[in-house]
Amino acid sequence: MTTHPWADDRQEGDDKFHEECAVFGAWNVADAAAITALGLHALQHRGQEASGIVSYDGKKFSSHRGLGLVGDVFHDTRIMAGLPGSCSVGHNRYSTTGDTLLRNVQPLFAEFEFGGLAVAHNGNLTNAHGLRRALIRRGCLFQSTTDTEVFIHLIAISLYATVEDRLIDALKQVQGAYSLVVLSQDALMGVRDPLGVRPLVLGKLPGAANDASGWVFASESCGLDIVGAEFVRDVEPGEMVVIDKSGVRSVKPFAAQRSGFCVFEYIYFARPDSVLDGMPVYNVRKQIGVELARESGIEADVVVPVPDSGVPSAMGYAQASGIPFELGIIRNHYVGRTFIEPTDQIRNLGVRMKHSTNRPMLNGKRVILVDDSIVRGTTSRKIVDMVRAAGATEVHMRISSPPTKHSCFYGIDTPERSKLLAAQHDIAKMAELIGVDSLAFISLDGLYRALGHEGRDAEHRRYCDACFTGDYPIPLVDHDQEFGPGTA
Amino acid sequence: MTTHPWADDRQEGDDKFHEECAVFGAWNVADAAAITALGLHALQHRGQEASGIVSYDGKKFSSHRGLGLVGDVFHDTRIMAGLPGSCSVGHNRYSTTGDTLLRNVQPLFAEFEFGGLAVAHNGNLTNAHGLRRALIRRGCLFQSTTDTEVFIHLIAISLYATVEDRLIDALKQVQGAYSLVVLSQDALMGVRDPLGVRPLVLGKLPGAANDASGWVFASESCGLDIVGAEFVRDVEPGEMVVIDKSGVRSVKPFAAQRSGFCVFEYIYFARPDSVLDGMPVYNVRKQIGVELARESGIEADVVVPVPDSGVPSAMGYAQASGIPFELGIIRNHYVGRTFIEPTDQIRNLGVRMKHSTNRPMLNGKRVILVDDSIVRGTTSRKIVDMVRAAGATEVHMRISSPPTKHSCFYGIDTPERSKLLAAQHDIAKMAELIGVDSLAFISLDGLYRALGHEGRDAEHRRYCDACFTGDYPIPLVDHDQEFGPGTA
Amino acid sequence: MTTHPWADDRQEGDDKFHEECAVFGAWNVADAAAITALGLHALQHRGQEASGIVSYDGKKFSSHRGLGLVGDVFHDTRIMAGLPGSCSVGHNRYSTTGDTLLRNVQPLFAEFEFGGLAVAHNGNLTNAHGLRRALIRRGCLFQSTTDTEVFIHLIAISLYATVEDRLIDALKQVQGAYSLVVLSQDALMGVRDPLGVRPLVLGKLPGAANDASGWVFASESCGLDIVGAEFVRDVEPGEMVVIDKSGVRSVKPFAAQRSGFCVFEYIYFARPDSVLDGMPVYNVRKQIGVELARESGIEADVVVPVPDSGVPSAMGYAQASGIPFELGIIRNHYVGRTFIEPTDQIRNLGVRMKHSTNRPMLNGKRVILVDDSIVRGTTSRKIVDMVRAAGATEVHMRISSPPTKHSCFYGIDTPERSKLLAAQHDIAKMAELIGVDSLAFISLDGLYRALGHEGRDAEHRRYCDACFTGDYPIPLVDHDQEFGPGTA
Amino acid sequence: MTTHPWADDRQEGDDKFHEECAVFGAWNVADAAAITALGLHALQHRGQEASGIVSYDGKKFSSHRGLGLVGDVFHDTRIMAGLPGSCSVGHNRYSTTGDTLLRNVQPLFAEFEFGGLAVAHNGNLTNAHGLRRALIRRGCLFQSTTDTEVFIHLIAISLYATVEDRLIDALKQVQGAYSLVVLSQDALMGVRDPLGVRPLVLGKLPGAANDASGWVFASESCGLDIVGAEFVRDVEPGEMVVIDKSGVRSVKPFAAQRSGFCVFEYIYFARPDSVLDGMPVYNVRKQIGVELARESGIEADVVVPVPDSGVPSAMGYAQASGIPFELGIIRNHYVGRTFIEPTDQIRNLGVRMKHSTNRPMLNGKRVILVDDSIVRGTTSRKIVDMVRAAGATEVHMRISSPPTKHSCFYGIDTPERSKLLAAQHDIAKMAELIGVDSLAFISLDGLYRALGHEGRDAEHRRYCDACFTGDYPIPLVDHDQEFGPGTA
Repeated sequence: MTTHPWADDRQEGDDKFHEECAVFGAWNVADAAAITALGLHALQHRGQEASGIVSYDGKKFSSHRGLGLVGDVFHDTRIMAGLPGSCSVGHNRYSTTGDTLLRNVQPLFAEFEFGGLAVAHNGNLTNAHGLRRALIRRGCLFQSTTDTEVFIHLIAISLYATVEDRLIDALKQVQGAYSLVVLSQDALMGVRDPLGVRPLVLGKLPGAANDASGWVFASESCGLDIVGAEFVRDVEPGEMVVIDKSGVRSVKPFAAQRSGFCVFEYIYFARPDSVLDGMPVYNVRKQIGVELARESGIEADVVVPVPDSGVPSAMGYAQASGIPFELGIIRNHYVGRTFIEPTDQIRNLGVRMKHSTNRPMLNGKRVILVDDSIVRGTTSRKIVDMVRAAGATEVHMRISSPPTKHSCFYGIDTPERSKLLAAQHDIAKMAELIGVDSLAFISLDGLYRALGHEGRDAEHRRYCDACFTGDYPIPLVDHDQEFGPGTA
Repeated sequence: MTTHPWADDRQEGDDKFHEECAVFGAWNVADAAAITALGLHALQHRGQEASGIVSYDGKKFSSHRGLGLVGDVFHDTRIMAGLPGSCSVGHNRYSTTGDTLLRNVQPLFAEFEFGGLAVAHNGNLTNAHGLRRALIRRGCLFQSTTDTEVFIHLIAISLYATVEDRLIDALKQVQGAYSLVVLSQDALMGVRDPLGVRPLVLGKLPGAANDASGWVFASESCGLDIVGAEFVRDVEPGEMVVIDKSGVRSVKPFAAQRSGFCVFEYIYFARPDSVLDGMPVYNVRKQIGVELARESGIEADVVVPVPDSGVPSAMGYAQASGIPFELGIIRNHYVGRTFIEPTDQIRNLGVRMKHSTNRPMLNGKRVILVDDSIVRGTTSRKIVDMVRAAGATEVHMRISSPPTKHSCFYGIDTPERSKLLAAQHDIAKMAELIGVDSLAFISLDGLYRALGHEGRDAEHRRYCDACFTGDYPIPLVDHDQEFGPGTA
Repeated sequence: MTTHPWADDRQEGDDKFHEECAVFGAWNVADAAAITALGLHALQHRGQEASGIVSYDGKKFSSHRGLGLVGDVFHDTRIMAGLPGSCSVGHNRYSTTGDTLLRNVQPLFAEFEFGGLAVAHNGNLTNAHGLRRALIRRGCLFQSTTDTEVFIHLIAISLYATVEDRLIDALKQVQGAYSLVVLSQDALMGVRDPLGVRPLVLGKLPGAANDASGWVFASESCGLDIVGAEFVRDVEPGEMVVIDKSGVRSVKPFAAQRSGFCVFEYIYFARPDSVLDGMPVYNVRKQIGVELARESGIEADVVVPVPDSGVPSAMGYAQASGIPFELGIIRNHYVGRTFIEPTDQIRNLGVRMKHSTNRPMLNGKRVILVDDSIVRGTTSRKIVDMVRAAGATEVHMRISSPPTKHSCFYGIDTPERSKLLAAQHDIAKMAELIGVDSLAFISLDGLYRALGHEGRDAEHRRYCDACFTGDYPIPLVDHDQEFGPGTA
Repeated sequence: MTTHPWADDRQEGDDKFHEECAVFGAWNVADAAAITALGLHALQHRGQEASGIVSYDGKKFSSHRGLGLVGDVFHDTRIMAGLPGSCSVGHNRYSTTGDTLLRNVQPLFAEFEFGGLAVAHNGNLTNAHGLRRALIRRGCLFQSTTDTEVFIHLIAISLYATVEDRLIDALKQVQGAYSLVVLSQDALMGVRDPLGVRPLVLGKLPGAANDASGWVFASESCGLDIVGAEFVRDVEPGEMVVIDKSGVRSVKPFAAQRSGFCVFEYIYFARPDSVLDGMPVYNVRKQIGVELARESGIEADVVVPVPDSGVPSAMGYAQASGIPFELGIIRNHYVGRTFIEPTDQIRNLGVRMKHSTNRPMLNGKRVILVDDSIVRGTTSRKIVDMVRAAGATEVHMRISSPPTKHSCFYGIDTPERSKLLAAQHDIAKMAELIGVDSLAFISLDGLYRALGHEGRDAEHRRYCDACFTGDYPIPLVDHDQEFGPGTA
């Protein structure tokens, strides 16, 4: 009913995959809810539809959740005052379903026999539907439509005595991708699924009194930086880090597995100043640009990024190719709401709310446009048209990801396959549809090289690259049951 | 009472001069108010406190004005539906006084003997106080505290018969900087003061039926681009462009004068994709960077812009110096409201809402930071501290403007002189206060060279550069009367 | 654009004349704005569309105005905190024009050569259009569409030296009905027009330190009661009461005239607990009921008031006739907004938001319905239908005013004559249209008897009764000029 | 955080018991949600803190719930458009706990194995705490803090196959007072507890196509009247009325019991135009006045009701005693928010937002004040002071209920016993505390006589009168377990 602030983003300029969520947690920290809100703010790019925080002050849990950006949901000092305590867990949501009900906004919270528990989840379960049906048959009442609520009920009906054991009991029944931050009366827990598909890092605030205070979890290291926390380490795939009054413990309830970290985090999702699994994201992106220049170099006058995500790769491309890097497309930072009805007049004029061309940098030039991905191709077409209208004589598009041909089932919002341009057409046809003189994507091996490997080793896959390859490392239980295996 | 969306900007990261206003007008255009709102949106950087539109449908004037960004003020289709007609004038406001009353939000509108008239003004009058006092003594009732209202009353009491003549009568009595867009029942008029201190351009929408339709005025050319209008020409200093049912006429009520266009428009105010007076802003900024590298080059490992305004100059600096350009500072685009109370804890942690460092690009590096100006110096100090905390071994700051030593009286929001760092200290002391290893500003001559001149010619000054030189091209009537001449 | 809280009132159950305004003022009183807000709240029945307060703290004037009820406009303690000072003037507005622009909300305020002045006006000027035209020709700029603004400009251009003299200068040029409260830096003034058409009373708060403190003006005595102020006296027709640091003075700039107090204030407008001109309103209304029973008694089983305004007259009727008084119609006090779209289904069901019948009191009964007036007759018809649907065997309607055949030009919102049922039809036809078995109005003489006179004396008219008689005591300058004399 | 619209009510003028809730349901009715909103509007007096509606359109359930009055929660046509379908259930809430969380706002809704189910509940369970604990131990997750949610979980875990049987299964496990309206995909059900403590009526809209359409349930008959529905009958104590596609069925799962209808519904809670259990509420109230006059008549000049609830009893008292009935106290209908901070000044002036005295009717008079109850006595004291300040020479208070000495556990908001004036003091002391010359309450037998009985028969009690007698007809399971038996 409300026009969301980023609606324009999606209508006009944003033909991207979208990260679904960010999580954050704080243990034994002054102003825990404020620290959490700041962390969520730094992680805003991972989810802009809704935000929530649950805090605990040693006696009771308090919560506030709302639709909108972190700064909107927590804009009021009275709201922050209503979230007392030194422990806290928070969540940003990007809904995949259009179903942004307030009751779906995380962290989910419930009162159990053993007390309260708040759960924040980044990822997506692949067997949630089946579990949900079984739980409902048992008499469980679901309050949300999120897969995350499955965790809650599994914990509630578990026969184990401690929260920790009940949580492990629940984890063993689910399949899928999850980075969880869980807050009980006694502990803050950070968990990654056995393949570690989504990121989760552990940090520590300076000046912490002892081993049991000052801890924070965040989806990315930039969530630590904003609050001045020191990066301690990534939570490992399949690990549960438990922080309580005795300090920090590591629990590993799963057998060791090969890693399956989402490679698209490096390409687009993560913030450029984050360091994931020891690799600075910005460096990886620049290096992809370098590889791209090597793989599909072409003569041209300028390298122009599609802002903002194409900038580092374009810089790498420019440095490797020696072609000047120029800001030929300017992004309007006051994007805000779509406030104008698209009448015929408005449409005919080709109004661009989000991008504008820097005509003198494009006019009469052979232009290499660098972007991070092509999803439906709608935006790419518009941008190419703009660049040509500004006088570019040639337009060559270089993409810093391989062609995205498959949907994601692990927590990323992707269109269904039939809407993915690369799933329907070969590169020549794509170039034609987008209207470029040439089009090239980084190769899979080039991508792995940019990440410091020799290339992709299908036997010992290092990352989840299913959106490029269709090689899904976690079984798609619900999907296969509904549509049949091999249809993703 | 409300926390404005950009409050954070000012608290933490924004130690800048601020443009006061943007103006826009449309004549004989379908959806005139929507076109105007889009134009104002593209000109949002020139004023974010309030926005207003007055439209005319051949029978009556309609208006809507509100505090906030364009997209907030005109977010509702019912609001747009309440602004019918094919003629329209709009305004963005950045208040210099903190006195953002709704009654001050432009366009100002009044019913005169001859009908309605709406006035949008970018600039500042230097003899408004005196005129105001005289008009009040005569029985005129002022409704706002803006200097713009002086125009309205001068028009009301003018004894001339036509609107055009009454407006000229008024213009001849005021002194100061003004780009005006004025809408009457019969005509749309665009006016620049005799020195042309503030910009104003004329454009035309494609497909206009005839010479008397499809016209738009905008403060900058980027306001034409967003609606697909073609750039026709700059309104000239001292010129009044009148558009009515007969087409376009040029009226020049003033004797020819040397030009006094605000040079800071090139340095910071204007959008990089605008072309002002034939010069592309982006190119000028890059060229300043080139001049800076020539004037004050230094050995270093990386050139890092303070985003976003420092980017083009940093690119120019890097290209001229051969030192790599890197995004060492990342800007959080979800700035929004300051939603967290700055408790001691928050302060101690050194929370940064707006900027974060890209540590791997800075750690162990000798860094050249490029920014556009130093006003109070508060932000510069914080940024330098951040960069050092990220591991930079040396920090050299290069500024793409000369030292700002004087206040502006022509429509720019500047602190009083005592708050201007460069008015109080020499460069060595400034470097010490900001905490850099070296500090250099572009020279006045360098700035003029970047603009295509041989240097500054004090005899035949081409721009208003009073904020650097104290050489004010328009008499400061009110100021001198209150504080004495030579005190600005 | 907004649905006003009382919209339902007008749509369904409210076919009444409406008082246009209430005024209030406080001089040298702690919490003056709060006292004023309370007074306006007690006077809410005189105007519900908008409310405003201007306060003065010895240095500056502050104001807040908004659309809606007093409690909505001043609901926030921060708003009240923004109205400091011990002097204050306030206004409730009921617009006659549908033109409820915020700029029309009173008190009007302007900065004059001599300082600020706030004016609150109850009434209506009959020569405002002509004055307005003349002032505009002179160069005066009108900001509102209210006749009240004429006062402001007349004061601004007056050549007299003092505020008091300028105000008198202005008063002498206007014709019409007005009760004014005016606040300058030096004085609070209460004025009634020469005929005293609208009420205005003077009161004093207990514990006032001296003769120059604790004073309040209010439209009705109930505005004094709510703040615990003692009733001092009515402001006299043609009197200007001036309160300043020397205490209270009476100024009488006009020659003595016969009185023309609005008799409808007694019948409907004023609150029943007010005392106007020495007469308790509640007593007058009961006495009208007594006269009605005498004049047009009829055999019946119950006397039922149309709530709430018909209650006192119905009680008087019942007491005089000996027929039991019963609450046969119940009013829903949670009227609020009209929140349901009137679909066919809703209309067919005959939904009544405001009134419901107390069926057991009506079923099988001969009912005398007592109401205060019939304007268009639409509500009367609906109420009669409801009463019959509840089983009444006979319905006799008795009205506590004479037939309303003429429009008011002195500050009351009345439909044009062609919409007034009594202007179009005789009583027999009205009875038929409304669907009653008999219909009777109080006679003019009966009305005057209820007010303690022997009857109406056309030669020495005691009240303005123009809405019944067409005998207008103040010339209808604007109206006669536009439509010709004798057309009202 | 929000000041509720009726806050003033409670602060100043409202020392009353409060009904907790209203319920409404519609089956096979055009515009079901609108009909429900109207019904809830007519039942607004039974709960003003929050309101909610769940509708069903044959495919899916839709819901909207919010804090505030019905007209506020459902003010928007888009909200109503979001509640499609011909079946609907609604609820008004008056919270007893101050804990007005949105998640507590009814109707509660859950997705069960068999589909969706919405439950609206008026009343209070006396064994809810124990049941809740047991359900949580079993793994049930409670989302609200209302006792109503116990129904939902009992239904979810029931092993019976049909919704109807599961509901009966749940009902047999709860104790307490409940009138429920329950909507499933297949049926609308109205249920009253075995004693029928709270009311519930069945009605039918005119023009219903067949036996399976046009049905409505409402807490009181006034909820039928507003939508033009015909009263069919009261749902009987212990009865479950089931409406589905086959028409209406009556199910009686409980053994017959004596009735326990809340006698306070007649005295104060119900609207005067409702007919409960065949008795018109207005008539009962008048008759109580008659009995009061007989039992405790006294010589006086006027009978004055405390408006609005004291009016019918005062009328009965006046008719029986022959002493004139006069409106000596006027109620301000624009109550709205408490918008003024109670500063010392405001307090000293004795500001009265809600009531004012009609001084001429009280001055010099011996006054009999009639009110419906005395709870804490705070308001009574203020009203008596007001009446004396208006000049009354004697004040005699007559109360149309017996002394309220015990708390209610069946769905009415009552203070704890220690706050009940009548639980702490005898009548002489109460008279002294309230400041009256005499004080009398209706006797228990008088109350029963007014209801058409010979007096109270303790053996065959006809009503629940526990608040007067402490004779609780339903065991107070939770209370007795916590505080021990006999402590209520």
